[in-house]
Amino acid sequence: MRILLVNPNMTQSMTDKMAEIARQIADGRAEIVPITAPSGFPYIASRAEAQIAGAIALEMIADNLHDIDAVIIAAFGDPSLAGARELFDVPVVGMAEAAVMTAAMLGERFSIVTFSPVMTRWYTDCVSDTGLASRFTGVRTPKTHLSDVANAARDVRADLVALARRAVADDGADVVILGGAPLAGLATEISADVPAVVIDPIAAAVAQAIALASLGSRFADRACKPIAKTSSGLSAALAAVIAQGA
Amino acid sequence: MRILLVNPNMTQSMTDKMAEIARQIADGRAEIVPITAPSGFPYIASRAEAQIAGAIALEMIADNLHDIDAVIIAAFGDPSLAGARELFDVPVVGMAEAAVMTAAMLGERFSIVTFSPVMTRWYTDCVSDTGLASRFTGVRTPKTHLSDVANAARDVRADLVALARRAVADDGADVVILGGAPLAGLATEISADVPAVVIDPIAAAVAQAIALASLGSRFADRACKPIAKTSSGLSAALAAVIAQGA
Amino acid sequence: MRILLVNPNMTQSMTDKMAEIARQIADGRAEIVPITAPSGFPYIASRAEAQIAGAIALEMIADNLHDIDAVIIAAFGDPSLAGARELFDVPVVGMAEAAVMTAAMLGERFSIVTFSPVMTRWYTDCVSDTGLASRFTGVRTPKTHLSDVANAARDVRADLVALARRAVADDGADVVILGGAPLAGLATEISADVPAVVIDPIAAAVAQAIALASLGSRFADRACKPIAKTSSGLSAALAAVIAQGA
Amino acid sequence: MRILLVNPNMTQSMTDKMAEIARQIADGRAEIVPITAPSGFPYIASRAEAQIAGAIALEMIADNLHDIDAVIIAAFGDPSLAGARELFDVPVVGMAEAAVMTAAMLGERFSIVTFSPVMTRWYTDCVSDTGLASRFTGVRTPKTHLSDVANAARDVRADLVALARRAVADDGADVVILGGAPLAGLATEISADVPAVVIDPIAAAVAQAIALASLGSRFADRACKPIAKTSSGLSAALAAVIAQGA
Amino acid sequence: MRILLVNPNMTQSMTDKMAEIARQIADGRAEIVPITAPSGFPYIASRAEAQIAGAIALEMIADNLHDIDAVIIAAFGDPSLAGARELFDVPVVGMAEAAVMTAAMLGERFSIVTFSPVMTRWYTDCVSDTGLASRFTGVRTPKTHLSDVANAARDVRADLVALARRAVADDGADVVILGGAPLAGLATEISADVPAVVIDPIAAAVAQAIALASLGSRFADRACKPIAKTSSGLSAALAAVIAQGA
Amino acid sequence: MRILLVNPNMTQSMTDKMAEIARQIADGRAEIVPITAPSGFPYIASRAEAQIAGAIALEMIADNLHDIDAVIIAAFGDPSLAGARELFDVPVVGMAEAAVMTAAMLGERFSIVTFSPVMTRWYTDCVSDTGLASRFTGVRTPKTHLSDVANAARDVRADLVALARRAVADDGADVVILGGAPLAGLATEISADVPAVVIDPIAAAVAQAIALASLGSRFADRACKPIAKTSSGLSAALAAVIAQGA
Repeated sequence: MRILLVNPNMTQSMTDKMAEIARQIADGRAEIVPITAPSGFPYIASRAEAQIAGAIALEMIADNLHDIDAVIIAAFGDPSLAGARELFDVPVVGMAEAAVMTAAMLGERFSIVTFSPVMTRWYTDCVSDTGLASRFTGVRTPKTHLSDVANAARDVRADLVALARRAVADDGADVVILGGAPLAGLATEISADVPAVVIDPIAAAVAQAIALASLGSRFADRACKPIAKTSSGLSAALAAVIAQGA
Repeated sequence: MRILLVNPNMTQSMTDKMAEIARQIADGRAEIVPITAPSGFPYIASRAEAQIAGAIALEMIADNLHDIDAVIIAAFGDPSLAGARELFDVPVVGMAEAAVMTAAMLGERFSIVTFSPVMTRWYTDCVSDTGLASRFTGVRTPKTHLSDVANAARDVRADLVALARRAVADDGADVVILGGAPLAGLATEISADVPAVVIDPIAAAVAQAIALASLGSRFADRACKPIAKTSSGLSAALAAVIAQGA
Repeated sequence: MRILLVNPNMTQSMTDKMAEIARQIADGRAEIVPITAPSGFPYIASRAEAQIAGAIALEMIADNLHDIDAVIIAAFGDPSLAGARELFDVPVVGMAEAAVMTAAMLGERFSIVTFSPVMTRWYTDCVSDTGLASRFTGVRTPKTHLSDVANAARDVRADLVALARRAVADDGADVVILGGAPLAGLATEISADVPAVVIDPIAAAVAQAIALASLGSRFADRACKPIAKTSSGLSAALAAVIAQGA
Repeated sequence: MRILLVNPNMTQSMTDKMAEIARQIADGRAEIVPITAPSGFPYIASRAEAQIAGAIALEMIADNLHDIDAVIIAAFGDPSLAGARELFDVPVVGMAEAAVMTAAMLGERFSIVTFSPVMTRWYTDCVSDTGLASRFTGVRTPKTHLSDVANAARDVRADLVALARRAVADDGADVVILGGAPLAGLATEISADVPAVVIDPIAAAVAQAIALASLGSRFADRACKPIAKTSSGLSAALAAVIAQGA
Repeated sequence: MRILLVNPNMTQSMTDKMAEIARQIADGRAEIVPITAPSGFPYIASRAEAQIAGAIALEMIADNLHDIDAVIIAAFGDPSLAGARELFDVPVVGMAEAAVMTAAMLGERFSIVTFSPVMTRWYTDCVSDTGLASRFTGVRTPKTHLSDVANAARDVRADLVALARRAVADDGADVVILGGAPLAGLATEISADVPAVVIDPIAAAVAQAIALASLGSRFADRACKPIAKTSSGLSAALAAVIAQGA
Repeated sequence: MRILLVNPNMTQSMTDKMAEIARQIADGRAEIVPITAPSGFPYIASRAEAQIAGAIALEMIADNLHDIDAVIIAAFGDPSLAGARELFDVPVVGMAEAAVMTAAMLGERFSIVTFSPVMTRWYTDCVSDTGLASRFTGVRTPKTHLSDVANAARDVRADLVALARRAVADDGADVVILGGAPLAGLATEISADVPAVVIDPIAAAVAQAIALASLGSRFADRACKPIAKTSSGLSAALAAVIAQGA
């Protein structure tokens, strides 16, 4: 089984870190094929950026889909998830959606803890988009934005533990999602300090990608696929997928 | 007052038709500045296409924002509306959202009637995104997709009237929105045949753009703007807006 | 274009202040025809009062509808809005609903800031009635009721700015509505002090009334109009409208 | 125990019929004090009429509250229910709300069957106002409006049975409410023909009024009561209640 | 009229206290038949315990249903309420549901105040199950769990009054439910200290049981009853009910 | 990895069929340990039966939890899922919930197709309990109940395909869940005949159980666990778990 891990951010070190965790979770059950966005932004943090990076992600998927059994869109806001599901005949997993669905199967109410207040609105919208807002107890973040996002897992670790504990005690969460690619890998490190199940979104995404691919679902001939379209300015591979249609 | 009418579709004749109606509604109160997508698709009809065309629309806005008082994203699914609102310091109006909000002020329950079943899911999601699903009675369409979208308003006019009448009688709608750019201008032609208020989305969008611009709201210094970001591969104007940040 | 501005409160000075702002927004595009309730209450602040003042408002509209293109019910709880829409063949705008719909087109999440905790429950219900509760971050007010409502805009200005800033920082609002007729005109004065779009409901109502009237919608023959009814004890004009029916 | 049965409609024969059923349900446990609206409409069937008749009902209650232990607003749309609860220090029961709450305790999903399509939208809104829309399977009615509302229970009895059976079989209702004062008394006549619990709203309202009064709740000093207000044009009794305030 | 008061907890003193209050409310209108769980738990406080105690309650009802006009499941989380309604041809009242429905007829927004934070999640789910979450302002409890649940009403009385007052002032509740069997009887003692209607769930349940039984609804032949089933390991009486089916 | 497959129904042939499919999906990645209810019902089809069988399932789990990495409750209504999650320190997967969550990651809107109208209400409630009702297009079933449930997959196969096709064409589903243990294995047989992804709930449950177990989450010390309780009448193993508490 081969899983395409699409990082719509341009930061290679994030891709490397996520691929490392992905391979631990896959544990030989799947080959991880990581790719990093060739253009766009170092780290997506807004709807405007997700609009643009999501379009780039569609091209990245189309260009690398050969022999792939499942795709992970490895950015917490799941840019272009709905569009990718329309176009491609394999399971497409969003990192945020996978974390949320996984959380909802490991407990009753989940919280998201992340490294920056800048992400709160977007992450909240992500949860709403999954349909599971009724089981969501909210986002908790430090009060100020970190200038150095890359080292967030190291620099605000104690804050994140404290926030996770408050999510449990004050908000009633029994599952805590550590949101955002810069926190990849932190869940296992802090889980003993938090009286709840702690979820690493990239781990959840890999577990879900393998689970979905193992079902062997038939995606061809789906009635929901877009009708065939001509296009202008797209990569050849993406233009070809869109030209084919339902 | 100058209003930028952004058609994220590549079809110039649609832009022309919408600009004509826009100028009728503006009636001298505003100058209409229409632009047509230079790349993308002839006519957006899926989430995948909206992902891509929305990214193009952000560049179209950034490139043409000088001396503009309000922006209309003139495609019924409102591609990149959330992102455009984050980035630009003027009112940004989505054609679907404007139609829905207008409908909710002209009656209690609104329906969307459109020319193709292909649009149903996307339009339904658009209404959910506005938050007004509780006042929505659903989408009604002919059973099959028209190959010639451009002449939909002429070719399926009788069907659309019948569908609108059923939306009133069977679904309880007291406002009917004629969704999709190809139906621009049809509302006034058929309103006497439908026992409900009938809305033309481009007309509603123009009326709302003028209304919002007339309030003279202050958009600078909004806390919700994305933080400054470097980028790669964007148009110079869009990159500059994103580089500036909140 | 002539717009009937119906103040269901008996306080003439409120009517005068709202008419002044209305004329600024109309800016020559419409004539404002203000009327003040001849009976009822100085200032409506409960559902019981809205029940009674709303019935009076229906008579005020029926008595003054000649040559009118749109009606504004100029009290923040929108008394009798649903009933007025059933009866009259012109756009009817509620001040609260117009503010809420306008807010939802200028941003993503809106808050209401007002001068008294007494209004909180009613205003919350107003938002629910619009259908847009999912985009609402709540009402913020000073802790105690002002005895002198008329000068609220002057007396608690600093408090209101602080509340608006908290609505942005703590509740995630990017639009703040200054609710209640006594705050008419305050929005433009404080908007530079609040990192969000600030909305004056009477301004929003006038902008919406002009927008809706500019669409030239056809209201006659709507299937949703009540059937003809005899009545007893109503003003002659209102009785005549109700006697006519659908 | 004395229960004030307020008919906001002007039709005395409806009051008589409802009082008769009320006395059967009360069965000696409570005295029924019926009053009929002195002005307004023969039979309320719209939001506009409910606005006006509700204001009249508040005066009817204030004028007759002496020695009363509970109030029933005996019209299916519950005109002025929220306002009456604010003002008066006894339980106030709405006929629709009581039927809905009772239905929700006798089964899982309830339907409303009534005599005219004219009532559908208003009754649907009534259910939404109770908060129980998620357990509601909708309104079913004959296709056309009866000119003779008074004899609806006799004239369309077979139709109503058939509609109730469809509500069970097609909509999944296990409780059916026969909505509207003209159907008072019909529930017991047809219950053997419907494979569900059948509810007569006036019976439910009386049972609930006795239940609520039997609890002996303390209404004085509630924080939710409106603050004291002067007024103009109200009956002396209502003006006095409103002048007293919280 | 005879009402079966089923305590799914094993604590006889709770049954005795609830029966005493039930008889006060019934006031001669109904005979109260109290029974206590023969196995299970001293006091149910989790979903796991409710799963087990609910199965025991179904047997308790089946074994004691002779000559009974209504059943009360006298534990605040309403264990097995949905199942009991399917099986038995009399009104079945849940103590939590009855309190919630009663609250919604005595005011607009209700809060639950209880003696232990351990109950918060379960009680919140109970309210959601009724469908009335939109009128619910939340659960307030002391911060720590009491070891001696039996004397909660005495030991934390002052705390509960303070919590109820905060529910009114901070959460906007106008009705406060004192949740949990250990608080039975406290409502009348503290109601003068709380500026809201205060509800004792067992009192509400009895009032509702009498109200529902007084309607004389027909439960036989309901289409919603389960189809006949064989079973193994159930009490003879319960097996017989299930063997009979719809 | 060892997965306990708990069939709360007493029918061994169902357990055998589900274990066979489970082993296909596991494909060597996990050992499947199937157990069948020793008492209760041949096939659960109501809330009453789920109440009882769920209590039995808790004992089945407690008695067999040694060396188990994840538990599947293998009945479509997920009896005792919430309770089992409280008590046991491993992932617990409900067959319905797993199917629903999986569906929501393979498409946008899912339908349930099952073999009997008797299941409709319960399955609908199951979806509501997951929180994903907004993405659910409803249950479709044949019009009459099959007397021979065991052979449903064979006897009504053509009907089920037709219902699935209507769920896609009329309801807009892009994923179809074949609900109910008697349909285990049918999904792969009919998927080529349905223009949507088709899900077998037992396959989804196994894939999810492996996914959740692969995350290695820490369940000990969760704050949400019930407090320790004495009990009477439970199996020794279950009593011991409950006696231990949080």
